[in-house]
Amino acid sequence: MAVSEQRVREIGEDLFARMKGETPGLFDKAWWSGQVLEWAMRDPVFKTEMFRFVDVFPSLATPEEVARHIQEYLLRPGVNPPTVIRMALKGAGLGAFATRIATGQIAKNLEGMATRFIVGADHASALPTLAELRGQRQAFTVDLLGEATVSDAESEAYAARYRALLDGLAAPTQAWKPDALLDADDRGPIPRLNVSVKLSALDCRLDALAFDASVEAAAARLVPLFQRARALGAFVNLDMEQRALKELTYAAFFRAMEDPSLAGWEHAGVVVQAYLRDADRDVEAIIKWAKRTQRRVTVRLVKGAYWDFETVRAAQEGWPSPVWLDKSDADATFEALSAELLAHHKHLRTALASHNVRSLAYGMAAAEKYGVPTNGFEVQCLYGMAEPIKAACVRRGHRVRVYAPIGDLLPGMAYLVRRLLENTSNQSWLRMGFVDGASHEALLAAPKRVQRSPMLGPVPVEAGRVDRLTPFVNEPLRDFGDAAVRAAFAAALKQTDTRLGRTIDAVVDVKPIPSPRALDRVDPSDGRTVIARVGLATSETADRAVAAAQAFFAAWRATPAAERAQRLLDIAARMRAQRDALSALMVREVGKPWREADADTCEAIDFCEFYAREALRMDAGHRMVEPPGETNVLSYMPRGVTAVIAPWNFPLAILAGMATAALVTGNTVVLKPAEQSSAIAAMFFEICLKAGVPPGALHLVPGLGEEVGARVVADPRVVNIAFTGSLEVGLAIWRQAGVTLPGQASLKRVVCEMGGKNAIIVDSDADLDEAVLGVVHSAFGFAGQKCSACSRVIVLPEQRAAFVERLVAATRGLVVGPAADPRTRVPPVVDSASRDRLLAALAAAEARGLKRFAAPVPHSVPASGAYVPPTVVTGVDPCDPLAQDEQFGPILAVIEARDFDDALRIAMDTPYALTAGLYSRSPARVEQARAELRVGNLYINRPITGAIVGRHPFGGARMSGGGTKAGGPDYLLSFVDPRHVSENTMRRGFTPQASST
Amino acid sequence: MAVSEQRVREIGEDLFARMKGETPGLFDKAWWSGQVLEWAMRDPVFKTEMFRFVDVFPSLATPEEVARHIQEYLLRPGVNPPTVIRMALKGAGLGAFATRIATGQIAKNLEGMATRFIVGADHASALPTLAELRGQRQAFTVDLLGEATVSDAESEAYAARYRALLDGLAAPTQAWKPDALLDADDRGPIPRLNVSVKLSALDCRLDALAFDASVEAAAARLVPLFQRARALGAFVNLDMEQRALKELTYAAFFRAMEDPSLAGWEHAGVVVQAYLRDADRDVEAIIKWAKRTQRRVTVRLVKGAYWDFETVRAAQEGWPSPVWLDKSDADATFEALSAELLAHHKHLRTALASHNVRSLAYGMAAAEKYGVPTNGFEVQCLYGMAEPIKAACVRRGHRVRVYAPIGDLLPGMAYLVRRLLENTSNQSWLRMGFVDGASHEALLAAPKRVQRSPMLGPVPVEAGRVDRLTPFVNEPLRDFGDAAVRAAFAAALKQTDTRLGRTIDAVVDVKPIPSPRALDRVDPSDGRTVIARVGLATSETADRAVAAAQAFFAAWRATPAAERAQRLLDIAARMRAQRDALSALMVREVGKPWREADADTCEAIDFCEFYAREALRMDAGHRMVEPPGETNVLSYMPRGVTAVIAPWNFPLAILAGMATAALVTGNTVVLKPAEQSSAIAAMFFEICLKAGVPPGALHLVPGLGEEVGARVVADPRVVNIAFTGSLEVGLAIWRQAGVTLPGQASLKRVVCEMGGKNAIIVDSDADLDEAVLGVVHSAFGFAGQKCSACSRVIVLPEQRAAFVERLVAATRGLVVGPAADPRTRVPPVVDSASRDRLLAALAAAEARGLKRFAAPVPHSVPASGAYVPPTVVTGVDPCDPLAQDEQFGPILAVIEARDFDDALRIAMDTPYALTAGLYSRSPARVEQARAELRVGNLYINRPITGAIVGRHPFGGARMSGGGTKAGGPDYLLSFVDPRHVSENTMRRGFTPQASST
Repeated sequence: MAVSEQRVREIGEDLFARMKGETPGLFDKAWWSGQVLEWAMRDPVFKTEMFRFVDVFPSLATPEEVARHIQEYLLRPGVNPPTVIRMALKGAGLGAFATRIATGQIAKNLEGMATRFIVGADHASALPTLAELRGQRQAFTVDLLGEATVSDAESEAYAARYRALLDGLAAPTQAWKPDALLDADDRGPIPRLNVSVKLSALDCRLDALAFDASVEAAAARLVPLFQRARALGAFVNLDMEQRALKELTYAAFFRAMEDPSLAGWEHAGVVVQAYLRDADRDVEAIIKWAKRTQRRVTVRLVKGAYWDFETVRAAQEGWPSPVWLDKSDADATFEALSAELLAHHKHLRTALASHNVRSLAYGMAAAEKYGVPTNGFEVQCLYGMAEPIKAACVRRGHRVRVYAPIGDLLPGMAYLVRRLLENTSNQSWLRMGFVDGASHEALLAAPKRVQRSPMLGPVPVEAGRVDRLTPFVNEPLRDFGDAAVRAAFAAALKQTDTRLGRTIDAVVDVKPIPSPRALDRVDPSDGRTVIARVGLATSETADRAVAAAQAFFAAWRATPAAERAQRLLDIAARMRAQRDALSALMVREVGKPWREADADTCEAIDFCEFYAREALRMDAGHRMVEPPGETNVLSYMPRGVTAVIAPWNFPLAILAGMATAALVTGNTVVLKPAEQSSAIAAMFFEICLKAGVPPGALHLVPGLGEEVGARVVADPRVVNIAFTGSLEVGLAIWRQAGVTLPGQASLKRVVCEMGGKNAIIVDSDADLDEAVLGVVHSAFGFAGQKCSACSRVIVLPEQRAAFVERLVAATRGLVVGPAADPRTRVPPVVDSASRDRLLAALAAAEARGLKRFAAPVPHSVPASGAYVPPTVVTGVDPCDPLAQDEQFGPILAVIEARDFDDALRIAMDTPYALTAGLYSRSPARVEQARAELRVGNLYINRPITGAIVGRHPFGGARMSGGGTKAGGPDYLLSFVDPRHVSENTMRRGFTPQASST
Repeated sequence: MAVSEQRVREIGEDLFARMKGETPGLFDKAWWSGQVLEWAMRDPVFKTEMFRFVDVFPSLATPEEVARHIQEYLLRPGVNPPTVIRMALKGAGLGAFATRIATGQIAKNLEGMATRFIVGADHASALPTLAELRGQRQAFTVDLLGEATVSDAESEAYAARYRALLDGLAAPTQAWKPDALLDADDRGPIPRLNVSVKLSALDCRLDALAFDASVEAAAARLVPLFQRARALGAFVNLDMEQRALKELTYAAFFRAMEDPSLAGWEHAGVVVQAYLRDADRDVEAIIKWAKRTQRRVTVRLVKGAYWDFETVRAAQEGWPSPVWLDKSDADATFEALSAELLAHHKHLRTALASHNVRSLAYGMAAAEKYGVPTNGFEVQCLYGMAEPIKAACVRRGHRVRVYAPIGDLLPGMAYLVRRLLENTSNQSWLRMGFVDGASHEALLAAPKRVQRSPMLGPVPVEAGRVDRLTPFVNEPLRDFGDAAVRAAFAAALKQTDTRLGRTIDAVVDVKPIPSPRALDRVDPSDGRTVIARVGLATSETADRAVAAAQAFFAAWRATPAAERAQRLLDIAARMRAQRDALSALMVREVGKPWREADADTCEAIDFCEFYAREALRMDAGHRMVEPPGETNVLSYMPRGVTAVIAPWNFPLAILAGMATAALVTGNTVVLKPAEQSSAIAAMFFEICLKAGVPPGALHLVPGLGEEVGARVVADPRVVNIAFTGSLEVGLAIWRQAGVTLPGQASLKRVVCEMGGKNAIIVDSDADLDEAVLGVVHSAFGFAGQKCSACSRVIVLPEQRAAFVERLVAATRGLVVGPAADPRTRVPPVVDSASRDRLLAALAAAEARGLKRFAAPVPHSVPASGAYVPPTVVTGVDPCDPLAQDEQFGPILAVIEARDFDDALRIAMDTPYALTAGLYSRSPARVEQARAELRVGNLYINRPITGAIVGRHPFGGARMSGGGTKAGGPDYLLSFVDPRHVSENTMRRGFTPQASST
């Protein structure tokens, strides 16, 4: 029952004929844009740099800034701009006047390019263009371009702009003279005024993790908009953005449409993206809903505009690509779904949005097949592109609707970049059809599904095997966009609640050793629920643990590295099998929200998998220079008993990382968790033993740092110490490790990771959408309780006002709440002592005259919970305690720098050197920061937390640490002593392999 | 005037015809030996293991030992012995009785194989075989097989055996009935009794470095032997051994022959090895001598039997190969030199020693050409080989002399291995002719010079360039066998003497800072000559140096790594240009003998070249896992001011290694040399500045460790400390570095190399020739003043008596003397304080009842010199202070172990873990030692000192050091902090290089 291929080609040829040899204006080489695009298509380096320059251009405040960026992007060695640009740039950098002229010309050309795709800055300026389109017998849907909304204020402003748009365009468009082609479909009149809205702009807090709450909130935003549209006789289309929001968008759309106030209203639409692998299920769901509700909404079928983003993001997360990797698959899906939609014409309306003549022809043929009249569906195209195709469709008698963006230059440029990429892509039908001159036959050929990468199945639960090891890959985070994933996590939380309150005792040689003293660890989200009773190990118990570790050392040392590595792979497998249980316990014990608890567990798994491989690599040793007759092998040997003193803030990952690094290199371990996170430590400990770590190799001593920690560190039998924690304790350990006691076998070596006072610099040309979100994420994730967290943001004069305003607004919108609540963005801090300390610091800052802006802590949270409002403090002096002392909480100091050099200086001007960040679109400044922001982990144009094993080896310098990098290639060296064996293989002048005469 | 190729072939074919199709008995597969050899020729793995087993076999005392070694060599997985061996071995390992049977059979077969090549255990048992040879009309020359002589006693015993041989054979051979073919040549009667002697056996102290003394001593050994031979009417041939002794052997031969007592005597001979590239010069020299002295001695022309040894040794030393790399070149040289010798028949006698029919035929044709009668030269072959060739020559009327070894099984087996290798080599003419069945044409083809690797020219003096870097190679040691090399070094010593006595001041920012106090450093060889006045820097000077280093740090840090690496290459070049001057100063300042001073300088050059390359490798950083849209680079950054606190025992190498490692990684350096070696440190310091190290990057502060060293270590501005020295000081530094002072930028990191108490285990099956020499070298080189030196030798019961006897004898023969004297094997210790301490320790040991055996300190050395006799102390308890405390002098404790496990336990049972050694020929025990001798540097079957940069990364564990490896791939990591930069490269969903739809 397929659509006739013959008919598709006839329609396609007919469309070609009706184009009358016209070419899209964009490609016209008589114009600047045509020449630039032609060059970009030829030269990928220029294309990247040009489009990046276009991206940053609107944020550049002065001609000097423009000139500098032109220099950095387009005139640096290796970039070869076309003549039309080189001519214009001859003056740039020559002097103020010439620069002004040159940059003025570039600016004019770029703005000209942008206006090709944008119908106007607002509805008033757009109206004439919309009227002109109508003159060409083309309908429209307007879209409001905007920056990302990072706060409620911005969301509300955006909604207000939509209301204004509807109000402003309703009357003028009503006044237009009728055009039957545009004003009605096969069922009757349709609105002339058609707007497209993006859900993310209406609600800055959409999050699939908090699915129900998000749907409810989004629907609440949509209903009034729909009501107003209905009242004005307008049509509203809900656009589709990245896949992470897809389910949520459909759900919000359905929920809003089902609002009683909108009963019977059909002038709304949603989008299906054919490039998604599961697009068929989306169509199925819409049809089902349409059948159930008898609402004939419009479905706009598109290929999808976020292909790069989706593939990159999936690769970064280690998720299967949600989109087809080959365009041909998306084309084929588009055709199949267009037929499917048209076959259900009874229940819905179809809009075919494509610039691909073949795809449109197929849809038209499918319409014929399913008896859908020509006015029973419409063709949609973007403004400023594909003019010949639009014209041909109009000439064939189709209703063509033009997607017409309205907006300012700033968001306009971002939109421009996207359109430029689309037009210059190798796979662009427009490029193939109008630039590369492909044959009609090729352009109308049926798409083939050439490459189908299978959807990823369930994560394998079997442990890796050292004898058939695959390359290291990171454990993918949970995709909480998946309802089943959310449900499983919620179930794990419930399950955890049934198991709280157990006593955590020291365990030496598998034997629990009860302690005379214990302390109750309570859930910081309520300050009441006892998570565990932590037995405080005595000095005697600590000594016993060290003695046991010492006694087993020789046996563990003699265990082959492969066997030790296998234990780590087995630990990883067991953690994978209990992932949600581990994460759920962290949610409860230290108040870590879902995503971050999940990431903590993933990191722990990563450490096991990574260090297992590293240990095998290390075990192979180095072959040194080997002259004939001599073998020279450098290898490594374990050192002895290792004290692992772990923090509570990454209660699983850091603990597991330090412990498994020590174990896999053949050292035995005495594990001292933080008193705040002993329960998760005990769970890890039990997993290790179950995974076959010998009882003698790993011992657990919960307790107080100043008691049991200090005791273990000072023990002469302990030769390695792996510590992560505060500067004060770190320095004390470093000092103690310097002391070599009588009878001590080896010098004590210390892996010492301490604090940070990490800054992000927001450059004058930073992308503020990203900078605001990145800073908020870095500063307030897990309530700022990460050594990597951003506690200082350094701003330059140019964007200071805009940035700080948006930052404050975004911070104020953060949801503070219990860690277990999926809506929570900022959980409580770890305990009431921490809360009191932080609140005191804020009060002191206020007393010093500093201004603070904080998100409200809702009254619904328990008063006994350790809640601290996420707070931005502005106008902080670089020497202020808030700018120098680590706070370890949700407090962010805003520091103003005079210029970029000043910003770098301020960033480096604390005793710490852990992480730092830069948001900048200046290649030269990025390079400068690479050289001068001398911290352990520098992040450019991204948040500064969330280091990933194997990607971002983590650790700081100066007072942040001793210079080790967890999850990096040198880390295991800290736990071993190198060892060289040289063997003379010559005997009687004879060496194996050598020949003799 | 070439020899006619036509005639060569005619003679060759005639020889073939006269062989009558006979085959050498060795290859006869009816016999065990034939089957084993056939298998060895097919299977190189079996060949290696079989020949190694043959090598160790005679040292195995019991059938159980034999069975164990058979198991380890021949029955381990991967070795596939032939049926004849597998059959015999079926019983091995099954039980005592079966083992005894099986090993008895193997032993019988091996002994049978050996007796094929050896005419008898002594002259009496050899006589019947010699008579039998004479019955076959073959003359003989007897050679006494022996172990290596490691002491005067052994040399004397060897000489006595020769005397006995001459005495014992003279009368019986005189009684033989005459045979004109054998008893006369063209000039008249020649001796029936013909012996071959090896110079190294007659004199254990031969050393080309002490050329004149060695020649004199060797000639003094030869003259009485020659006199006795003359008196008995015998002939003595001086055999040629490894090339290192060649010049010395010729010189001793000439000197002895010119002794007035031997005037007119001609019945002596020397050897020319045609495989040497300079063999033509040897022939030239002999002819010149013969013409001058009118002594027609015999020249035995051979190809050469040490090809493997010479090529391996040259490769190990980085010297050009002294031998032709292609056998064809050696064959061609043999022919050319045979013609040359025969052309000078008037002046000498020629013996053509070869088993190659082509080579012999060529010589015969040359004899015809130069009119040398058939009895005017002789053919020499080895006993037990090439029987058909010998027979054919006899049948052709030539005098054939058989080289007939006499000796015991122990040296016999070593000889057997050499012969087996020779017979089974791919390039063996015998194998080609009698096993592989090559055609007569091929076997008689003229040799082609196919491959001539050029002799190495002078070492390049230009510095390497970072932009065209060649792979790292070690700086080759001086070849003191070369007279010009010796002369240059002697000249450098003289030159040094003219420059002694200068004052060494602190230098900060190139400005010398005189000190109010100074101490005189005197030459330890005489205790009087002032080498330098060492200004003792004050605390204020130390502070100034640190401040200057701190001030320049930012600039040096910002200097590109390539530029810093270039400085090291330039320093290396300058040290290369001043090599002998540097070494000579060390001879004077710390009493380091020539070879060891030269090695010290080479090591310093190596460190520069190695770390320059390592720094560039490090500078490239690591690309970590990089998902699309993200770049992840791990790199390294300098830490700051580095204190380099260097020892006097490797006054150049260790100082230079630590300093250049710190510099090349971008740290600035305060250099504190040992007070005993400030002059060499100053010379290095000046070279660095001349090589372009900026004045701010490197500062010199000579002085006392407890004053200036301690001051610098404790300075909060100093963040790296590189120390090599004593345990006590090392621990104090480690402790001080643990203290983090207010204002200190970073935690202090310490590279800490301390002492050792290093043991060599001599296994029951060790090759004692090598073990004795290796232990002596390791214990007494540079008077034991190396942290790597052997101070304990652990012996097993089986070979204890033999080993200790030979060790004591070898030690007693060591020449103690001034470092500048080339004869000196054991120089003084570093100063009188050290001498007194060591002598006291020896006296205390004696007082505890320990027995000591020492070399005499000659009366000719100055009483004020710091001489300590090299001493072996026997019967030392593992807990005795001599077995536990580092002495740092020429004292060696002999410890007796019960068995191998006990030996391992004793070896590990000190607080140190620096070096260790094992002499063993048991593959299983070598493996066990690899696993259980957990020291920094383990050496197997070789001395335990002399680690070479890039080959033997050096450094110890436990109380020997913090686990760093100088000259290894991880070393530079100690001087830097790691640093990671992650950049998000995605903008607007677009990533460079990714495609978009």
